[in-house]
Amino acid sequence: MEMSLNTVTVKEKWGLSECIEGCARHGIPGISPWRDVLQAMGVDRAAKQIRDAGLAVSGLCRGGMFPAADAAGRAAAIEDNLRAIDEAHTIGAACLVMVCGGLPPGSKDLPGARAMVRDGLAAIMPAARAAGVTIALEPLHPMTCADRSVLSTLGQALDLCDEFGAGMGVALDVYHVWWDPQLAAQIQRAGSRIAAFHVCDWKVPTLDTVFDRGIPGEGCIDIPAIRQMVEAQGYGSFAEVEILSKHWWQQDPEQVLPLLKERHAAAV
Amino acid sequence: MEMSLNTVTVKEKWGLSECIEGCARHGIPGISPWRDVLQAMGVDRAAKQIRDAGLAVSGLCRGGMFPAADAAGRAAAIEDNLRAIDEAHTIGAACLVMVCGGLPPGSKDLPGARAMVRDGLAAIMPAARAAGVTIALEPLHPMTCADRSVLSTLGQALDLCDEFGAGMGVALDVYHVWWDPQLAAQIQRAGSRIAAFHVCDWKVPTLDTVFDRGIPGEGCIDIPAIRQMVEAQGYGSFAEVEILSKHWWQQDPEQVLPLLKERHAAAV
Repeated sequence: MEMSLNTVTVKEKWGLSECIEGCARHGIPGISPWRDVLQAMGVDRAAKQIRDAGLAVSGLCRGGMFPAADAAGRAAAIEDNLRAIDEAHTIGAACLVMVCGGLPPGSKDLPGARAMVRDGLAAIMPAARAAGVTIALEPLHPMTCADRSVLSTLGQALDLCDEFGAGMGVALDVYHVWWDPQLAAQIQRAGSRIAAFHVCDWKVPTLDTVFDRGIPGEGCIDIPAIRQMVEAQGYGSFAEVEILSKHWWQQDPEQVLPLLKERHAAAV
Repeated sequence: MEMSLNTVTVKEKWGLSECIEGCARHGIPGISPWRDVLQAMGVDRAAKQIRDAGLAVSGLCRGGMFPAADAAGRAAAIEDNLRAIDEAHTIGAACLVMVCGGLPPGSKDLPGARAMVRDGLAAIMPAARAAGVTIALEPLHPMTCADRSVLSTLGQALDLCDEFGAGMGVALDVYHVWWDPQLAAQIQRAGSRIAAFHVCDWKVPTLDTVFDRGIPGEGCIDIPAIRQMVEAQGYGSFAEVEILSKHWWQQDPEQVLPLLKERHAAAV
């Protein structure tokens, strides 16, 4: 697999234009922008600069966030996801990654929130299919269930893929799934529906439930073993490096990118 | 269900003797000691004081911690578990709760660590059965997989129960399992093998992966819904309150215990 840089990895230091230039300069062939930096740069301008730099777009982060306390909030989320589909289409992203959303504030109704995710996906799939944008459901680590994603396992994501069919796949981030006793079986079940593969590492100890990820090789995940499972299903495009980390965000991207390239070669 | 106090809930303020007196004074009919305070008090002396106070022992925390870097370490863990079985027998504990252990330091071999857990259980089950001590496998939240428990889901625990048969059950802590999309199905599968039911709450946000639990009602877990699922399987003994929390540890147990009684009645 070739390397792709998820822009959140250097979010404190670089905007999207600098990320594009940085990938080109350091020989990283793929990029995956977050929507905040994409919108800050302007979608059309970004699409052109990415194309001119010869980069592939392994994904757009992120759609989702469907659950909301009221109908207006849920409708607004759907509208925003439709815009995200347009953006993903414009930049030629291989998929739109879905972080599905947590419980509405104050809610304890987990089955209800999961139903809101299903309803939201039902509302956007026709537009996604029409635009040719693959919707990549990303199961997030169960420690994010309350505030980020009630979609917690690969098996649960594949249940939704079974239900919705064409145009939907999964984004597999080793950080979110490495612990799952069902991982090997569910990757096999996923088959050709793996739309994205994200890498980082689980540090021991982990000091923050969101912003303390390690770079590949820094933690305890057997990334090559998971990569092999994914490749055995025919996935062969990008290993996207996505590091949310208060520590790494403070470092100079000019040092971080070569290090990530090295780790991508040695520890992925 | 009646209330039981897990002694870790007040670990910074009270030893076991004070916990026993506190439960009796506040009308809490069950107690579940951790082994450190049990050993500090002396097992026989503790058994007598618990009996004299008329308390039931809903469990002993904890056995497990089987994975280790070398054979000597694994043998030592098994020896320690055999002592724990004796202690559980001596105090008349309803079960010995198993926190199975994480990866050995520096290891990335998750399947290997899970095999060490299975081997460790195989080594102790004859002694547990002979002593009449139920081994209660506690699946721990996946965020503890690296350093505390490679046993991550109720389904995985029940696979082991299926394999080992008589004398093994599960300890169900809402904190560890509430996010699981398979929870309802797996509780049904557990049936009469539910040996313990632990309650606390998931705070939003959660600031520490181990020591930031909430008291029932303080977080987003629909505890009554899970309690009903458990009761539907015929479990009716204790709801054990177990709070690992840097915040709550600072409070005076004389205030905490009445508050927990109130929450046990209103939010469990």
